[in-house]
Amino acid sequence: MLSRQTREDIPGVKVETIDDDDIVITRVHITTPEAEQIMGKRQGRYVTIEAPGLRYKNTPLQEDVMQHLAEEFAELTGLAQNATILIVGLGNWNVTPDALGPKVVDKVVVTRHLQSMISPELKGGVRSVCAISPGVLGITGMETSDIIAGITARIKPDLVVAIDALAAASTQRVVTTIQLSNTGINPGSGVGNKRFGLNQESLGVPVVAIGIPTVVHASTIAMDTIDTLHQHAAFARYFKSMENLTDSDRQTIIRQVLPDTLGDLMVTPKEVDRLIDDMSIVVAGGINQALHPNIDYENIHMYIH
Amino acid sequence: MLSRQTREDIPGVKVETIDDDDIVITRVHITTPEAEQIMGKRQGRYVTIEAPGLRYKNTPLQEDVMQHLAEEFAELTGLAQNATILIVGLGNWNVTPDALGPKVVDKVVVTRHLQSMISPELKGGVRSVCAISPGVLGITGMETSDIIAGITARIKPDLVVAIDALAAASTQRVVTTIQLSNTGINPGSGVGNKRFGLNQESLGVPVVAIGIPTVVHASTIAMDTIDTLHQHAAFARYFKSMENLTDSDRQTIIRQVLPDTLGDLMVTPKEVDRLIDDMSIVVAGGINQALHPNIDYENIHMYIH
Amino acid sequence: MLSRQTREDIPGVKVETIDDDDIVITRVHITTPEAEQIMGKRQGRYVTIEAPGLRYKNTPLQEDVMQHLAEEFAELTGLAQNATILIVGLGNWNVTPDALGPKVVDKVVVTRHLQSMISPELKGGVRSVCAISPGVLGITGMETSDIIAGITARIKPDLVVAIDALAAASTQRVVTTIQLSNTGINPGSGVGNKRFGLNQESLGVPVVAIGIPTVVHASTIAMDTIDTLHQHAAFARYFKSMENLTDSDRQTIIRQVLPDTLGDLMVTPKEVDRLIDDMSIVVAGGINQALHPNIDYENIHMYIH
Amino acid sequence: MLSRQTREDIPGVKVETIDDDDIVITRVHITTPEAEQIMGKRQGRYVTIEAPGLRYKNTPLQEDVMQHLAEEFAELTGLAQNATILIVGLGNWNVTPDALGPKVVDKVVVTRHLQSMISPELKGGVRSVCAISPGVLGITGMETSDIIAGITARIKPDLVVAIDALAAASTQRVVTTIQLSNTGINPGSGVGNKRFGLNQESLGVPVVAIGIPTVVHASTIAMDTIDTLHQHAAFARYFKSMENLTDSDRQTIIRQVLPDTLGDLMVTPKEVDRLIDDMSIVVAGGINQALHPNIDYENIHMYIH
Repeated sequence: MLSRQTREDIPGVKVETIDDDDIVITRVHITTPEAEQIMGKRQGRYVTIEAPGLRYKNTPLQEDVMQHLAEEFAELTGLAQNATILIVGLGNWNVTPDALGPKVVDKVVVTRHLQSMISPELKGGVRSVCAISPGVLGITGMETSDIIAGITARIKPDLVVAIDALAAASTQRVVTTIQLSNTGINPGSGVGNKRFGLNQESLGVPVVAIGIPTVVHASTIAMDTIDTLHQHAAFARYFKSMENLTDSDRQTIIRQVLPDTLGDLMVTPKEVDRLIDDMSIVVAGGINQALHPNIDYENIHMYIH
Repeated sequence: MLSRQTREDIPGVKVETIDDDDIVITRVHITTPEAEQIMGKRQGRYVTIEAPGLRYKNTPLQEDVMQHLAEEFAELTGLAQNATILIVGLGNWNVTPDALGPKVVDKVVVTRHLQSMISPELKGGVRSVCAISPGVLGITGMETSDIIAGITARIKPDLVVAIDALAAASTQRVVTTIQLSNTGINPGSGVGNKRFGLNQESLGVPVVAIGIPTVVHASTIAMDTIDTLHQHAAFARYFKSMENLTDSDRQTIIRQVLPDTLGDLMVTPKEVDRLIDDMSIVVAGGINQALHPNIDYENIHMYIH
Repeated sequence: MLSRQTREDIPGVKVETIDDDDIVITRVHITTPEAEQIMGKRQGRYVTIEAPGLRYKNTPLQEDVMQHLAEEFAELTGLAQNATILIVGLGNWNVTPDALGPKVVDKVVVTRHLQSMISPELKGGVRSVCAISPGVLGITGMETSDIIAGITARIKPDLVVAIDALAAASTQRVVTTIQLSNTGINPGSGVGNKRFGLNQESLGVPVVAIGIPTVVHASTIAMDTIDTLHQHAAFARYFKSMENLTDSDRQTIIRQVLPDTLGDLMVTPKEVDRLIDDMSIVVAGGINQALHPNIDYENIHMYIH
Repeated sequence: MLSRQTREDIPGVKVETIDDDDIVITRVHITTPEAEQIMGKRQGRYVTIEAPGLRYKNTPLQEDVMQHLAEEFAELTGLAQNATILIVGLGNWNVTPDALGPKVVDKVVVTRHLQSMISPELKGGVRSVCAISPGVLGITGMETSDIIAGITARIKPDLVVAIDALAAASTQRVVTTIQLSNTGINPGSGVGNKRFGLNQESLGVPVVAIGIPTVVHASTIAMDTIDTLHQHAAFARYFKSMENLTDSDRQTIIRQVLPDTLGDLMVTPKEVDRLIDDMSIVVAGGINQALHPNIDYENIHMYIH
């Protein structure tokens, strides 16, 4: 059963929720500088599409999510028919959970080089799309933002779409959630802890970010365990009080469980290779549908590399 | 500085330790049925090679470990010059941390089909080796033990060597430890929780197992967190007493932190793709050296597919 | 327009042709020892499905071919509902045009290990299928026929299906033709010039072979050039007579054009990587449909690894 | 035995040949506009390193070629210690014989992002290197020259090195020859028949091109066959005269042998996957050695992604 709800509990933060049991869509619109400060997030639109069932192979659900993504993406970008779009697949293709962006770029229908060959009647529904996976700093020796800024200055797209794998704040979100925003990518997010920003300021064109949590840090599991002990009354008989468990004590516990020498431990579902493949189909499919609404998918091969 | 120690604290369990700071080798020999029962492990020899430095790219250490593995493996198998050896790479090549066995098989020098072409003077140091990665039950629809038993009955090797990725009991062991045993593989171990056994009983020939921990289950992190809280006096002020924290309470906490719906969550180092590649070179190199001591490695390409 | 024709020009060789412009199916039935000798092929059924359009990305044609393959395969095998089938993907996964067999095995729906879990009403249309890609002699050190014979003796399937990439006799056939036969694989065919046989004699169970030409030898191009010069009246003015161009002269010319030192040169379409992927989908799809007629493909993920 | 020869048969074209039996190096220097016109090649330096033995797995020869490549490359570029170099891997990573450039980029030691971390004593021998594989037009929708021009304008390297797989004029050259030039890449070369130029004019910085023939077109085989018939007296008895075999007749023959509908047929050695891997190690190794002469290769892992 579909439920729909709009609220504005915090002034300047409009929250709309659409829930049809399998898929929950949350649209957050931060509209004032005050709300920006309260939320710790830039003014702009944020959309989250959640579907826990994506964890299991389920083609009809994947197609539903793809359709919703196409709609939310079209709404967020509001693109003109003759816009040129540059799709950027962020992340490291050699690290499975970080390879989502490059895998989406592999499946996106690229048409910018075919514009002169597309018949006028088709053209209305086939936008000019180009795409690249620039690699990460350790592979190229160049900041991703420099590579994309250089290409953007040359190609002059009307919109950049940046796709990235994220570290989730909770295990439940891993490979079940798609996050969109029209504020671009801001420093510090991403599986590989990217330092750069990709946004209107750095590129000079609007940037829509699509992010999918694909891992959680192992420390999140440890932290969640402490919190669970702490919060559940059932375990109260073991504790004097954890009210005053200090942050420094939390760090001590985590350092004990996960020594620094282990480097960065990631938690992923066992079938992460397949899940990343599936999710890249959902995301690329949603983008293709939004950008090329008139393509007859029986003939899409004509446009695909 | 090298230290060497031999002990027999438990009757029937001889333990020898060789420690040269970078690498610790532990040889355990279970010699009596009573010791078998106490240890919960079959009578036989167990060797562990530990080198925490393998976590970091370090070619000289890799070569040292490779050399030690070659020696321990040769010692454990005591193979005749004219023996035929079947190397089996267990695990699923589509799941990165489970792909270690197949990757080792890719790098093992296979010679069984070249025996008639090898000159007599070389032959003394080039054993007859064949190799296969059978895949996992979900890929083949056949129990791995059935596939290997069928091939063994036909090829009649003198020894089967089974290589497998394991789930570690502790994060510290992940991709830093090589475990050898002349008791083969017994049901229930492995990243994919293999159900089958590969041992002298099931195959009719001796089986040496080489296992490398490549993941820990996420629940191990949660369990370690609870134990850390429990054991460290520094946190005592928070607890009444965790002496009597029941197993059922532990399960409740873990189910809270890691709901069943998430499926099997694995913890791996972020660079697991590269670590598995590196480890497969170490293991294949050690096996190649032990089985083909006379090969001039400048000319090894003659034997490699 | 569909045309259908049956002839028996050679006694004991029934030839039936079904031509619908896009796809030509030829069924040859060799029924007598005399015909076997004349044709240089074992008694049995041979089916060829030709669709030159497969060279171009064309999803509806691929689905048509898949459907025809399913029907011809079902007809050729005449399998009981409760039969167990072992699918064997021959060839070397490291050599793109030889990787067709392994790629088909990746996409075949494997069910043998799920038989106890399949509901009775579904079971009628879900046969017990297992599958393996054994690798090639240079990779395993074992003859493929030994590996498959060992597994067959253990698993006892009712039918073995062997899928292989072939060297074509003509460039026109490359990746446009599927060949089926109920006589199995006989020595000497295949991209890698396999020496072994996989047939009822060697395995003790019926063997259906599915072969797809994926390359031609470079020498075929040279030979075709000579023949073209030879046969076309347009070039007659250049020649005294090529009637008596000897085989030895032909060999001399080809050795000149393609020195032995070059090794084995293959001719493939530039997009061979994509064509092999596409063809593996067609073949796996046809097999899946023939073996599991009742599977609802929306739910097929339940059976797929 | 080493032989060395210098000639200037054509005025303005200095040719130097160094032949040590296994490896032949030819250095051509076109120094005048007249010579440019006669040769049909821009003024500049052209170096060819030929080693037919590269066709066979042969590690010592590979290392020799790598060493020669390092020397010729250093000589051709004459780089300052503090130069920044951008390595560009041209070609399509999805088409095996066209994937050489991207594979070289994977193995090049990238250091530009580490400059601040490199100790001063090491710095003299570790140049600032960055690298990218931009993909091909059909994958990105952008001309490669636009992508590289955009990045170059932003990063401002002192030199661009472009690595590309080429179509050979003769089967003998396939994967046995390395071609260097300081004139960059000019339109129309490459396996995928690239249309763009990458040179000082288009990028504003010097460009060194490194090209390796990895395929021949199938039509080259047909053409070679005709020429062999034509030129060898041994076959004269078959022909009236081929003196006046017209170009149009040649085209007719080739169209007969290789119909247009077949698309672009390539001829490659059967082991092309392995040969491309081997060659990418030779080229990347040569570049690494030339650019980072002081790196201790035991510790090179510190710099490698």
